[in-house]
Amino acid sequence: MERVKPRTLSGFMELLPERQARFTRMENILRETYSLYGFTPLDTPVMEASEVLLAKGGGETEKQIYRFTKGDSDLSLRFDLTVPLAKYVAQHYGELTFPFRRYQIGKVYRGERAQRGRFREFMQCDIDIIGDGKLDIMNDAEIPGIIYRAFTAMGLKRFVIRVNNRKVLNGLFEILELGEKAGDVMRTIDKLEKIGEDGVRAILTEDFGVPAETCDELLSVIADKDPAAALSRFTGRNEKFDEGVGELSTVMRYMKDFGVPEDAFCIDLTIARGLDYYTGTVYETMLLDHPEIGSICSGGRYDNLAEYYTDKKLPGVGISIGLTRLFYVLDEQGYLSGDLLTAPADVLVLPMTEDMSAAVSLSTALRAAGIRTQLYGEQKKFKAKLSYADKLRIPYVLLLGEDELAAGLVSVKNMRTGEQDKVPMDSVMEFLQNGLAPLREGAPVSEPEKK
Amino acid sequence: MERVKPRTLSGFMELLPERQARFTRMENILRETYSLYGFTPLDTPVMEASEVLLAKGGGETEKQIYRFTKGDSDLSLRFDLTVPLAKYVAQHYGELTFPFRRYQIGKVYRGERAQRGRFREFMQCDIDIIGDGKLDIMNDAEIPGIIYRAFTAMGLKRFVIRVNNRKVLNGLFEILELGEKAGDVMRTIDKLEKIGEDGVRAILTEDFGVPAETCDELLSVIADKDPAAALSRFTGRNEKFDEGVGELSTVMRYMKDFGVPEDAFCIDLTIARGLDYYTGTVYETMLLDHPEIGSICSGGRYDNLAEYYTDKKLPGVGISIGLTRLFYVLDEQGYLSGDLLTAPADVLVLPMTEDMSAAVSLSTALRAAGIRTQLYGEQKKFKAKLSYADKLRIPYVLLLGEDELAAGLVSVKNMRTGEQDKVPMDSVMEFLQNGLAPLREGAPVSEPEKK
Repeated sequence: MERVKPRTLSGFMELLPERQARFTRMENILRETYSLYGFTPLDTPVMEASEVLLAKGGGETEKQIYRFTKGDSDLSLRFDLTVPLAKYVAQHYGELTFPFRRYQIGKVYRGERAQRGRFREFMQCDIDIIGDGKLDIMNDAEIPGIIYRAFTAMGLKRFVIRVNNRKVLNGLFEILELGEKAGDVMRTIDKLEKIGEDGVRAILTEDFGVPAETCDELLSVIADKDPAAALSRFTGRNEKFDEGVGELSTVMRYMKDFGVPEDAFCIDLTIARGLDYYTGTVYETMLLDHPEIGSICSGGRYDNLAEYYTDKKLPGVGISIGLTRLFYVLDEQGYLSGDLLTAPADVLVLPMTEDMSAAVSLSTALRAAGIRTQLYGEQKKFKAKLSYADKLRIPYVLLLGEDELAAGLVSVKNMRTGEQDKVPMDSVMEFLQNGLAPLREGAPVSEPEKK
Repeated sequence: MERVKPRTLSGFMELLPERQARFTRMENILRETYSLYGFTPLDTPVMEASEVLLAKGGGETEKQIYRFTKGDSDLSLRFDLTVPLAKYVAQHYGELTFPFRRYQIGKVYRGERAQRGRFREFMQCDIDIIGDGKLDIMNDAEIPGIIYRAFTAMGLKRFVIRVNNRKVLNGLFEILELGEKAGDVMRTIDKLEKIGEDGVRAILTEDFGVPAETCDELLSVIADKDPAAALSRFTGRNEKFDEGVGELSTVMRYMKDFGVPEDAFCIDLTIARGLDYYTGTVYETMLLDHPEIGSICSGGRYDNLAEYYTDKKLPGVGISIGLTRLFYVLDEQGYLSGDLLTAPADVLVLPMTEDMSAAVSLSTALRAAGIRTQLYGEQKKFKAKLSYADKLRIPYVLLLGEDELAAGLVSVKNMRTGEQDKVPMDSVMEFLQNGLAPLREGAPVSEPEKK
């Protein structure tokens, strides 16, 4: 037979079992966290009519879209989860209850140039809260609590959630008479961390003709170590600015009650998250030890989710975690914990008698008790059987031979310590549950010691 | 602004939140069940190189495939999870440990003619156990235990797992000198339930020239109420047949130890599951009250998973549940339980004071205790807030006003009974956990009384 060489497309992540188990654990943590905050699961098709998916049109993204025809249909694969959400909310508006809180975890597609660490298929994990006409600012304050809990549950410790408000920025630009240059100024101050105050000043004055005095005034706010105090110097001069400052202070005020410790969030007046979508609060999340990775969870407040589909005003606030890329960078930085239980089973049952009934019944009882169990039925040498458990890192092997059966015992081998115990059949569940409890607590991420 | 009418492609399932919550619950039950049996989660790309995905080529499926080009690449969307598994195992052979037990839950794509109840995007939930060279028959015996547990956990009661063995059928055809007509005979006896013994006899004798005597002998076995006994009359005459009977009896013998009650499985000599893939044990699962729906979980044993990609012999056994179709038919038959907790949250916290700190802190504490909580921050009338909880079927509403705060109490309104209690703040978790426990036990499926 002629054979085809099996291969995976470049730009598509396909993991070996142990790494997939880690990835799945991280995905489950996000599901659990999002559920805990009262978000309902949503699923939409991977494919949509191109006319619908590209209603907004234009932009860099359009070239990257997987678009094709099948029969008479012009089809496209989704490139994010926001456009499908907009479509869904507009289409089912009358059947939804607002505020509509949904999470969606699913793959999206972008035919980017193949490049290390760039993926053409990647998993997005989004939450959004959509209001009907209005949406209270308390929702914006809740979001960082969700980000904090999700990453903490994964095992991350050294990260910070940066918060800003677009109304503050835009209001400030108006006060400083930079309104017409808002886009250029925003893109420049976004580089503050990278190029420093002098670098920003140089670009603003030389490239965009911002007066030196205005530049100093701007920098005195956005580079201030105490941004809240700096902002208070400008209040009362611009309505939009005051509104933004009010929103930002509400978000800051409730953050601690939402469970975010003070050292895990800050105001950062340099973040803007693009020009044309967000209208209020914006978020970025950075790894303290790896700022070069950029934001691992971003989002913000928008005025109008679905204007391309409906005349209803649907404001919302949301965030997105790109799990495929996050997994990739955590792996590359050595952040994936070696202690996580990645084995496909907690227990491997080895029948040592020809009639396997007792071993089968024991496996059934273990599963009924919630213990993930494999029964090893292959005709192999004992050493090969143990080696199977070892390779898969299954923590316990149960041996059931004539002697054990006659005495009502099970031999339990702890594969991590090598210890072997004979345990009475009626207490084997408890024995295993006690041993497994600490193993199950392992987090998928463990940060290396800070250098 | 010109608006595009939002719509979902025909043949694509997109559910409203309450139904999506049910679907997700069923999906999670499958994940949990598969994990309990020691299967590792696997994910492969939705898209593959056409050359790889269509290595086997031909067949009815090829016309249905979503195939397109992007740049220089000829790409196809996966139409099942078996071909990607074959590719994966062949590609990563050296890095896997055998028997390799994996589950995969993911969407697959077939551009079928649009038709009620037929989907172009649907979720497959597969398990397979792949051996390296050999795979013990005990694995075949385990599979029905997994099917039984999965469906029982969903709430199904009246179903039966039918088991057959292709070696038995093929051996029997050889004994009866029907070997050359095996395909035609198999397709005909598959209709036994529908057209009865006389119908089968008519087709076999008239259309395919099977001698009347042979026909009677064949029917005396496959239509026997006690198939095991009927088979024993033919043993010792054909090696393949004897091997198949041995395998079938091993599967039957251990099924009860694997937790399947006797009335939930049977031998059915009429099932074959297609002609060219399965080589030993085959399974079908039928709803007792709706045989017209056909099998809701099928699979079997195959000799060679990946012959198009590798010369390694990789026998396996597996099953597949088409969850999208299953959900559709259960819904249509009125099998979806009205009692399932489908609300996005267990509790809605209503702050009744201007400073929401206490309500926010309570929400944070509830979430830390594993209670799914929404905080309602919108400025609405009290009635509208309660109506929000009511529409989403959130079981508990917590009211936190000045009086409650001063007294260290929370008003807890049970939305199902309308009762309202003032509960001390330090015992509110316990109060809620007790009330929620029975609600969380609900199964997604509840069979209507048998008519």
